[in-house]
Amino acid sequence: MKWPVLLINYKAYDNSYGKKAVELSKQIERVAEHFQDINVIICVPAVSISEVSRSVSLPVFAQHVDPVAAGAHTGHITAGMIADAGASGSLINHSEMRVGFDEVAESVKQLSSERLESVVCVDRNELVAPAAMLGATAVLVEPPELIGTGISVSNTRPEVVISSVNEIKRAGRGLLLVGAGITNYDDAKKSIELGANGVGLASAVMKAEDPATKVKELLEGIRSGMHK
Amino acid sequence: MKWPVLLINYKAYDNSYGKKAVELSKQIERVAEHFQDINVIICVPAVSISEVSRSVSLPVFAQHVDPVAAGAHTGHITAGMIADAGASGSLINHSEMRVGFDEVAESVKQLSSERLESVVCVDRNELVAPAAMLGATAVLVEPPELIGTGISVSNTRPEVVISSVNEIKRAGRGLLLVGAGITNYDDAKKSIELGANGVGLASAVMKAEDPATKVKELLEGIRSGMHK
Amino acid sequence: MKWPVLLINYKAYDNSYGKKAVELSKQIERVAEHFQDINVIICVPAVSISEVSRSVSLPVFAQHVDPVAAGAHTGHITAGMIADAGASGSLINHSEMRVGFDEVAESVKQLSSERLESVVCVDRNELVAPAAMLGATAVLVEPPELIGTGISVSNTRPEVVISSVNEIKRAGRGLLLVGAGITNYDDAKKSIELGANGVGLASAVMKAEDPATKVKELLEGIRSGMHK
Amino acid sequence: MKWPVLLINYKAYDNSYGKKAVELSKQIERVAEHFQDINVIICVPAVSISEVSRSVSLPVFAQHVDPVAAGAHTGHITAGMIADAGASGSLINHSEMRVGFDEVAESVKQLSSERLESVVCVDRNELVAPAAMLGATAVLVEPPELIGTGISVSNTRPEVVISSVNEIKRAGRGLLLVGAGITNYDDAKKSIELGANGVGLASAVMKAEDPATKVKELLEGIRSGMHK
Repeated sequence: MKWPVLLINYKAYDNSYGKKAVELSKQIERVAEHFQDINVIICVPAVSISEVSRSVSLPVFAQHVDPVAAGAHTGHITAGMIADAGASGSLINHSEMRVGFDEVAESVKQLSSERLESVVCVDRNELVAPAAMLGATAVLVEPPELIGTGISVSNTRPEVVISSVNEIKRAGRGLLLVGAGITNYDDAKKSIELGANGVGLASAVMKAEDPATKVKELLEGIRSGMHK
Repeated sequence: MKWPVLLINYKAYDNSYGKKAVELSKQIERVAEHFQDINVIICVPAVSISEVSRSVSLPVFAQHVDPVAAGAHTGHITAGMIADAGASGSLINHSEMRVGFDEVAESVKQLSSERLESVVCVDRNELVAPAAMLGATAVLVEPPELIGTGISVSNTRPEVVISSVNEIKRAGRGLLLVGAGITNYDDAKKSIELGANGVGLASAVMKAEDPATKVKELLEGIRSGMHK
Repeated sequence: MKWPVLLINYKAYDNSYGKKAVELSKQIERVAEHFQDINVIICVPAVSISEVSRSVSLPVFAQHVDPVAAGAHTGHITAGMIADAGASGSLINHSEMRVGFDEVAESVKQLSSERLESVVCVDRNELVAPAAMLGATAVLVEPPELIGTGISVSNTRPEVVISSVNEIKRAGRGLLLVGAGITNYDDAKKSIELGANGVGLASAVMKAEDPATKVKELLEGIRSGMHK
Repeated sequence: MKWPVLLINYKAYDNSYGKKAVELSKQIERVAEHFQDINVIICVPAVSISEVSRSVSLPVFAQHVDPVAAGAHTGHITAGMIADAGASGSLINHSEMRVGFDEVAESVKQLSSERLESVVCVDRNELVAPAAMLGATAVLVEPPELIGTGISVSNTRPEVVISSVNEIKRAGRGLLLVGAGITNYDDAKKSIELGANGVGLASAVMKAEDPATKVKELLEGIRSGMHK
């Protein structure tokens, strides 16, 4: 996975699917073209992977994938399905979609077998190395008490970022992303300065009056953090 | 919901999504055109609702929907999403995707608010009336021990169908579908003769060498059961 | 189940288990002896059912039971286990321990096969009749937004109680309990006056400085509501 | 944790609770007294921890513990509860009681805060090091396809044992137990010879006509494996 990363999680907001999602993705793509050094990933609902993938050249991720291969699994989303629809990876174990210990391992394996990337979400730095050792392309650390608050992990709890960066080094593999409360230029810049390979966020962009301008601000923050 | 119903669950089989699903759906549609008196519903993976809906005029259902409205729900499939993608309803509580007692109620409500139909799956006749009272468009009874066996509920356990038909009458609302092991003309015919408003199945069609011919056989069975 | 009911859920508070639970249960029993017309039920953690049952003659309930019979079910609590330990019933589907649609049916059945009572918790009046039809001894309605707030369902949302009372009548079987925010004499009295067969609560007693006095107050409220 | 270990999981069998569990535990204790060099652990249902702990001096484990501290957690089993009841540890994430990725971390932490031991169950050797890094006292590897079959992991899939032993060494902490299909002297002996610190089993003892003799056979197998 190319880095630094700006990972935008569309969640299930009103503008996360259908025509609004396509329009939003095009806006993000236009901004991202001016930041070729940064890997902008968008995570969209399963129903919209196919349509968004056809509309933009940004890497499109699923928000969840089930730990099963093709078969009798009603209502499940498989790695094969999202690959076929145009996704290049998936989130796993998001705080709003937790999965089992064994399921993290199996989901990473299923994604890998389709040559897809995996971003495993965890709620504490102690889980960074275990997730990386399971083969995750990247681990996204998000202290749950800060998600959606606008109070950023990088400015409020820099020690979480620092210790997570140390953990990913200890694992000897994988990238380290941070999230929770990432809202502006400073939050993004600080995260990168502390050693993270990227940031993840949702509401800051999805609920912005002008999402394109917000994405530009965050990308400038990441770039500034890199070049310091 | 118009009835009698033939509900085909694509599950997560290899041919359930992408181009294969579109091709399969077109084949089913061509057969269904000769059975305008029967409501042929196809239940496809979330990733393929949009594409399949655009390709055929058959009613397309989701296989699962989460009991939430739009919002911060990573990895969730909302009624709004599937409606936007072209679905006209969803399965709820399939044996491979069980949900909570309260979630059945909330999912039916969310679907209803999007003017979508709901087919609640249950494993025993005692749950038929409760599910119907929650407002389900239809209840699909499937004894779990027969699912995928090819041993049909209608021929092996007709008492389940009969008591379920009585239960739906007692509830005073909703249709009653039966499933589990429905494989051929006789299984379908017998189900309708016993009073069911339709049948649900998956592997008999999805794993058939010639799915179109199998669908035709099942539709003829349903028609025969109606006209008896 | 004898009624009116005062159902006290010990949850997993510090005083819910061990010696503190036995001491608390004895205090409650001493008060309850003066209210022989009211059925005081205490719901204790699985680890303490045996010890509390031996210490008091109040009916002791489990807080949860799994929908399985004896067998290879590591970590599960069966109806047979709690019966053997001295319980006379169990809560099912508490808002902090939700279970599946089918599991409610199976748990009620398992409890019934051990001649144990079942109190199914639901979050809305639409679920009262379905739960009662599954054979629950009683249904406990608790609007989740009021649980633990001290703002009582009976005083804030009397329409929930009234419609739930109507629903239980419609089902033609089972008792109707209400809960969420029940804290004092008036909350208990009002609940009974509105037609409920009892009230359920937890923190009002478990966190009281003097639990015995609080139980006395609630029992007097119930009695007053009955005799109005 | 002292080793080698013979861990006997009572599951929810008919003889797992109540008087039968006490009697069985006493029988096991009498045999274990002749094998002071082996750590015999019994894992009992939550309802019986207290009674069994008082009856024997063997270390008693819970079969599951929830990842929460004391509080408003109806139906949950906390580390504080089982410690108070006399347990000295708990299984976590048994294949019949899987928990989330974050929950494994939190459960180990909760147990540790009560000075209790933790045995994390996993289904593959890739999860051994991650579980050990979370601080588990021991990791129990059980290929799910062999559980309850009587076909032992040590004789059928020795490579799983060998690679798991390597993984625990890589983690640099924790013991490595193996399970699934362990039935007799040879299975136990072979497991130890391959480098495991102990074996876990259930049905071989719980369903034995003469459990005491079966325990003796297994303990002799372990001893033989050690002294080779």
